[in-house]
Amino acid sequence: MTNTQQDTIIAAATPPGSSAIALIRLSGSDALRFVDQCFYSHRHKKVLKQKQSHTLSFGYLMHGQEMIDEVVVGIFKAPHSYTGEDIVEISCHGSPYIQEQIIHLFMEQGARLAGPGEFTLRAFLNHKMDLTKAEAVADLIASNSKASHRMAITQLRGGFGKDLKELRQQLIDFAALIELELDFSEEDVEFADRQRFVSLINHIQQQIKPMMDSFKLGNAIKNGVPVAIAGKPNAGKSTLLNALLNEERAIVSPIAGTTRDTIEELLNIDGVAYRFIDTAGLRATTDTIEQLGVERSYEKIKKAELLLYVIDINTFHHKDEAYAELEEIRSFEIPYIIVANKADTCKGAWPKLMNEIPEVIAVAAKNREGIDELKQQIGNQFMKQHHLPEGEIISNARHYHGLRHANMALDEVLNGIGNNLPTEMIAFDVRTASQHLAEITGDISNNDILDSIFTRFCIGK
Amino acid sequence: MTNTQQDTIIAAATPPGSSAIALIRLSGSDALRFVDQCFYSHRHKKVLKQKQSHTLSFGYLMHGQEMIDEVVVGIFKAPHSYTGEDIVEISCHGSPYIQEQIIHLFMEQGARLAGPGEFTLRAFLNHKMDLTKAEAVADLIASNSKASHRMAITQLRGGFGKDLKELRQQLIDFAALIELELDFSEEDVEFADRQRFVSLINHIQQQIKPMMDSFKLGNAIKNGVPVAIAGKPNAGKSTLLNALLNEERAIVSPIAGTTRDTIEELLNIDGVAYRFIDTAGLRATTDTIEQLGVERSYEKIKKAELLLYVIDINTFHHKDEAYAELEEIRSFEIPYIIVANKADTCKGAWPKLMNEIPEVIAVAAKNREGIDELKQQIGNQFMKQHHLPEGEIISNARHYHGLRHANMALDEVLNGIGNNLPTEMIAFDVRTASQHLAEITGDISNNDILDSIFTRFCIGK
Repeated sequence: MTNTQQDTIIAAATPPGSSAIALIRLSGSDALRFVDQCFYSHRHKKVLKQKQSHTLSFGYLMHGQEMIDEVVVGIFKAPHSYTGEDIVEISCHGSPYIQEQIIHLFMEQGARLAGPGEFTLRAFLNHKMDLTKAEAVADLIASNSKASHRMAITQLRGGFGKDLKELRQQLIDFAALIELELDFSEEDVEFADRQRFVSLINHIQQQIKPMMDSFKLGNAIKNGVPVAIAGKPNAGKSTLLNALLNEERAIVSPIAGTTRDTIEELLNIDGVAYRFIDTAGLRATTDTIEQLGVERSYEKIKKAELLLYVIDINTFHHKDEAYAELEEIRSFEIPYIIVANKADTCKGAWPKLMNEIPEVIAVAAKNREGIDELKQQIGNQFMKQHHLPEGEIISNARHYHGLRHANMALDEVLNGIGNNLPTEMIAFDVRTASQHLAEITGDISNNDILDSIFTRFCIGK
Repeated sequence: MTNTQQDTIIAAATPPGSSAIALIRLSGSDALRFVDQCFYSHRHKKVLKQKQSHTLSFGYLMHGQEMIDEVVVGIFKAPHSYTGEDIVEISCHGSPYIQEQIIHLFMEQGARLAGPGEFTLRAFLNHKMDLTKAEAVADLIASNSKASHRMAITQLRGGFGKDLKELRQQLIDFAALIELELDFSEEDVEFADRQRFVSLINHIQQQIKPMMDSFKLGNAIKNGVPVAIAGKPNAGKSTLLNALLNEERAIVSPIAGTTRDTIEELLNIDGVAYRFIDTAGLRATTDTIEQLGVERSYEKIKKAELLLYVIDINTFHHKDEAYAELEEIRSFEIPYIIVANKADTCKGAWPKLMNEIPEVIAVAAKNREGIDELKQQIGNQFMKQHHLPEGEIISNARHYHGLRHANMALDEVLNGIGNNLPTEMIAFDVRTASQHLAEITGDISNNDILDSIFTRFCIGK
């Protein structure tokens, strides 16, 4: 990565398509020089090199005698920029043709088209941010709810990365003492107080554990909390999904087994995105394709954070039938809400049984009745299970696995101390734990890790 | 329009969608104050009001205690901005959620969502640009070829508007003399030398005429030069279109009459966009729907700038048949190229007749043979007909009609002078001509004209 870092890179930073303005960014030591060569003001050439950082200039981009566009050029001089290098931002008219011409203009001069996430990669390599912050940038761009946005902002502000660095430093300080013992191994000295070391590791694990525990929540918030909609065929699952989303998304038909594919839709409730998953009706079937759908339903339900189980309200007139179904619901062993649908078809008073089951809520999905109450209950249910912690929430699988491996290595350290294993082995496990923490923040990194992170970014970021 | 101009307006200037950066603009007297209320640096509140124009500041946008995003804020102080008002440009992370939050934040403070083209409308109302330049901004954003881009840039630079203003001023100066005669109408004086006036009008018309003449070309360049592809069924029209576009766009089948709808596709050749129109096969048919298609073909062909007439090369073995078809081609009375297709199926030497018709070019569309030569000939053909003039090209129907009406009024003036009509009538026609010129540049405008222009802009421009 380091040798390509000499290049000056260029990319559009705004989405493709026509618009009022598009933004094209150059970063690198030649950025100012490249732009100076074709940027003119009314009368004479502008010289950006002589301008102060953080200033905006109006002028014309010229390709030889041909004017490409009237533009506003912003400059950020190294190291006071996003990447830590000289950055030039060109605001041009938002025509795809013009953007193409401008990028072409600077590529002719020697700029290279940036790879995915290369601006942020350079920011990381130039120590403008650690890896967790770099990843937060991508999460921030993808954030689509209050909760996922807040999670990404907190991570961008860097609490998590800073905490890890501190924990790691304590580990390193202690490791230094242990390594020292190795140098004097024939003298049987003990520089590192084992008792204090054990309590340090306990302390570190106490901080790592809640981070690890928050991952399930964080991941759910980032990708949308999975809520499975299940129930017997024709209970009205697809109609309920449509009512929740307030649009006609799922194909609804009175023929049992209409829904074969699982359908997923996002809906924001109280600032949290929920991913509603409509599943095929649960029933024994001889149709092979439908059978596949039923199996997939069971899988999806088990992975969900919440189950909306839809029952025709009239079922509750038959105690045995209702309790059999209730048993099936509980067998999934995840939190559930029972949605007693078709309340509009219920002649006379609602079945008495309704009052005996606390998790039930009556709706008439077809007429969108009771839907707001249901949404509210979904939100409450989620909040009841997951106190949104004040601290950092881990939403990134890479971070989770890093913490898990660090934690496992620390278990080994404790095990080694407890069983009086040789100092070399303890030192090895301490280094392993430290390494895993360092990889999360990027204090230790390699091209494989960086590639896997930044290739998921968009070009221009 | 004037009373709503007090508001501070806000809109995203970049296209919708996720990206590295999005740009949100505020314009109006409260823009700096609104942003100052929620823009913080690391330690303390930033005060943009105290900053110099054309500077960039890094900081945080806060909604109460909640951080919305890390942003870079650029300021342009009135009158040195696009709109002539204070402008604040906020570069945020390109998440649609964040953009929504930021716009919401400032709307809470009193900013109003900008209407289509409202930034440019304000630029016009604040005399930062005339109407022809404002319209050039929209053309520039929509430009998709070298020629349409160059046309829009030239118009943006303002040659056309400036020329018109000069012509109008000469007219106004003379009109003043004529109006003076009206004040002294009982004394039969002639302040305005009729002879000089006639030559002035001749001079103005000599300048208006080439502008009007350039409209057909300008309009074609802006919307793509229409090229009709026609020919008998199964000559290979759709295959030719696919070969030209280098993709499978049209449905190709060996069944005669497959193409019923006309298909249009843009292709850039030598910097000019051509709009290729595949037409239904030309033949007598009893199928009603196909019959409609054939009628539409005739219409489209007549409106095209160039006709690509596709013939099976083997037709040229039959002299009578070929000459009958040649007659049909010429009957359209537009420039044409005859494309002798299926050259690969031609056994032995090509038909001798091929050499007798200069406008013919042999291709094998199926194998993409001869396609580059054909493209070149299309470009040459267009250039032969239309010398791209050095001067201004009119591409806007509004401008064309304004010029036409001004020209008609000037004809009336000449007619009035020639027939010694009363001075009042001549003065009226002079004013009419002057008014039409003034409406083009916007020196005279009304809400109807402005509405019809700016509602076609995108929001944010």
